[in-house]
Amino acid sequence: MNDLAIQRAYGIFDFFRTVNGKFIFADDHLDRFFYSASQMRLEVGKTKDELKELLAELAAKNNIPDSGIRITLTGGYSEDGYSLAKPNMVITQKPLIAGKENNADGIRLISYEHRRQLPDVKTIDYIMAIWLRPWLLQNIADDVLYHQAGKVSEIPRSNFFIVAHDNKVATAGNNILKGIIRKQVLKISGSRFDTEEKDIYLDDIRDAKEAFITSTTKQVLPVLQVDGQQIGTGKPGEITMWLREQLTQLVYD
Amino acid sequence: MNDLAIQRAYGIFDFFRTVNGKFIFADDHLDRFFYSASQMRLEVGKTKDELKELLAELAAKNNIPDSGIRITLTGGYSEDGYSLAKPNMVITQKPLIAGKENNADGIRLISYEHRRQLPDVKTIDYIMAIWLRPWLLQNIADDVLYHQAGKVSEIPRSNFFIVAHDNKVATAGNNILKGIIRKQVLKISGSRFDTEEKDIYLDDIRDAKEAFITSTTKQVLPVLQVDGQQIGTGKPGEITMWLREQLTQLVYD
Repeated sequence: MNDLAIQRAYGIFDFFRTVNGKFIFADDHLDRFFYSASQMRLEVGKTKDELKELLAELAAKNNIPDSGIRITLTGGYSEDGYSLAKPNMVITQKPLIAGKENNADGIRLISYEHRRQLPDVKTIDYIMAIWLRPWLLQNIADDVLYHQAGKVSEIPRSNFFIVAHDNKVATAGNNILKGIIRKQVLKISGSRFDTEEKDIYLDDIRDAKEAFITSTTKQVLPVLQVDGQQIGTGKPGEITMWLREQLTQLVYD
Repeated sequence: MNDLAIQRAYGIFDFFRTVNGKFIFADDHLDRFFYSASQMRLEVGKTKDELKELLAELAAKNNIPDSGIRITLTGGYSEDGYSLAKPNMVITQKPLIAGKENNADGIRLISYEHRRQLPDVKTIDYIMAIWLRPWLLQNIADDVLYHQAGKVSEIPRSNFFIVAHDNKVATAGNNILKGIIRKQVLKISGSRFDTEEKDIYLDDIRDAKEAFITSTTKQVLPVLQVDGQQIGTGKPGEITMWLREQLTQLVYD
């Protein structure tokens, strides 16, 4: 109860995935975890290599080949409930089969004007995302797409991409959490399509041929609708599905 | 670790004060606590009367006559780390002598453009406030005054008032957490001065005769400087000190 995470919501985390007992993109996650910690002035108290060893030890003991591993780092036990103390770190592991959603499923998004606090830091703050969930249900949407004055940023736990009719692939570059799968998809996409990080507006989405989201849990997932308007044919797009397959191959290789 | 407060920063609280073993403005705090819970769709699971009894029981057992009591209500143990579960409620008590700052001390504020998420709800989110603290130190300021495009709202744990040269007293009415001491000070002030809730701009502060903040912990505390500029004479104002005395009297009566 005296930790600043509960007292003042002050904490960060990162979420690693294992497949067949192997860590996927572990260095990227570790780099982001240390970046978040430094932005929040939280001492990790371990080097990257030490943390890697800890992760491996936990994974060996738990023996859950396909899993999600969360490292949480908090503001620590604060004497006055306000000042930063020595951070507490806890690592937990749970079974996870990522990207298990049916390809054809796709999701429906609804836009909402909001910018996360310290958007490039993976803080524990998802207050708005959870607060908005009943509103999503009412509006028959699966998730929320944040924007500021029509400029799109991200989904609470995913990044957002569009494919234009000329097959240009784009995702927002600012005011977002830079996802690890986003990075891989940018790389894969760039090997075949004109791909860029740029400002995307709600109007651009209406004109898009395809849209999709990326995340460690969802991998690449088609977006079929935004604000009740169908994207392209209203079915998962070809380029989306190609990226999804390429990513899956990369992960399993 | 599985509570949504740590997973997703999803929780609320309220902070009660006891003086000589008696709860001060307990009904106001309870009303606000239930309001916050309802806004966040968290079931308190107790009536106000039941909660009052619990508070009294705790106070009797702890026997800390001058104290702060915090009731925290969280999103609960969430299966998927994202969906609301049955809320957890924890009540803690610690010694507290409120308003112990020296009258003459006063504080220096620095303005920062930010609006709290769900500002009228007492969530546990103080991420920006704590994140800004090193910046306050660098700028020789004691606390931060939030504004949006020059329109002032609040201090992270206090409300903000100004007194104009014609003795009009004003505090922001929107995008704030409505403080319990703020309410009392509005009442006391209104008994003698023209007092209103209205939009206050940074420019208004520069022209003000006095400024002060209110909170359960600080009661009424003079503001001597905002953004490095002296307010009025640069000393605690007469009306500020009168309000402070009146409030103290009310509390001890």
